[in-house]
Amino acid sequence: MDEFMQAAIDEARLGLEEGGVPIGSVLVHRGRIIGRGHNQRQQRGSVVLHGEMDALENAGRQPASVYRDSVLYTTLSPCPMCSGAILLYGIPKVVIGENRTFLGAEDTLRQAGVELELRDDVQCRELMNTFIDRHPEVWAEDIGE
Amino acid sequence: MDEFMQAAIDEARLGLEEGGVPIGSVLVHRGRIIGRGHNQRQQRGSVVLHGEMDALENAGRQPASVYRDSVLYTTLSPCPMCSGAILLYGIPKVVIGENRTFLGAEDTLRQAGVELELRDDVQCRELMNTFIDRHPEVWAEDIGE
Repeated sequence: MDEFMQAAIDEARLGLEEGGVPIGSVLVHRGRIIGRGHNQRQQRGSVVLHGEMDALENAGRQPASVYRDSVLYTTLSPCPMCSGAILLYGIPKVVIGENRTFLGAEDTLRQAGVELELRDDVQCRELMNTFIDRHPEVWAEDIGE
Repeated sequence: MDEFMQAAIDEARLGLEEGGVPIGSVLVHRGRIIGRGHNQRQQRGSVVLHGEMDALENAGRQPASVYRDSVLYTTLSPCPMCSGAILLYGIPKVVIGENRTFLGAEDTLRQAGVELELRDDVQCRELMNTFIDRHPEVWAEDIGE
């Protein structure tokens, strides 16, 4: 496990401990984490702060040159909103913990030239399965279903 | 001018008065505004709260059934991130103030079956042109350029 995916998993685990959707993310610029975050639906009542969005928000305002030299790590396949944010800011590479519990807009990202690296990580899957078993209605809400 | 686009323009104008990027939006469910907002980059240092996202956030947590019976009004063509949020939540229709100062991911929305209504409104264009003239660097940052 590299340190960046581990940091994203730590964020997801923190979210689960808070009673939230366990999806975490970190934005890494030239080998350094500049933003970390996790899904804030339960904790802050947010409908826009998915894990990836929370990491981007916590990284703060950045010039395009920073995003274009960054990698986004996320424990779960990015949904259409998060994928749109990745495209907006021109982030060239995304490392994905798993995409079995939810398959996001990976095709859209790939078609736009974003490099995707899939880890199929058992910890990421277990975190999601635990939450979906406990709170299927919250998970459905989080993905607009 | 219908009341909903006017409300979105009022939000954009409020943003300009605050020194912010003048893009406003309202989410309308069955003829009633349930969320309104405007771009928060300058005001709150947010990289995710574009006008549309701020309106969605201010509408709070909603079941999928509400989004699927709503219309999003926005003064500017929605960027990839905001378009992704529209797709995530299954909002079936978007009314767009203008798309001359910035053309967002309209093709993506249309291909996904979202109904788009373009107003080409002079007030919306003037708000954006005023801001872009004053703060081209902030506008570039807002669209990842």
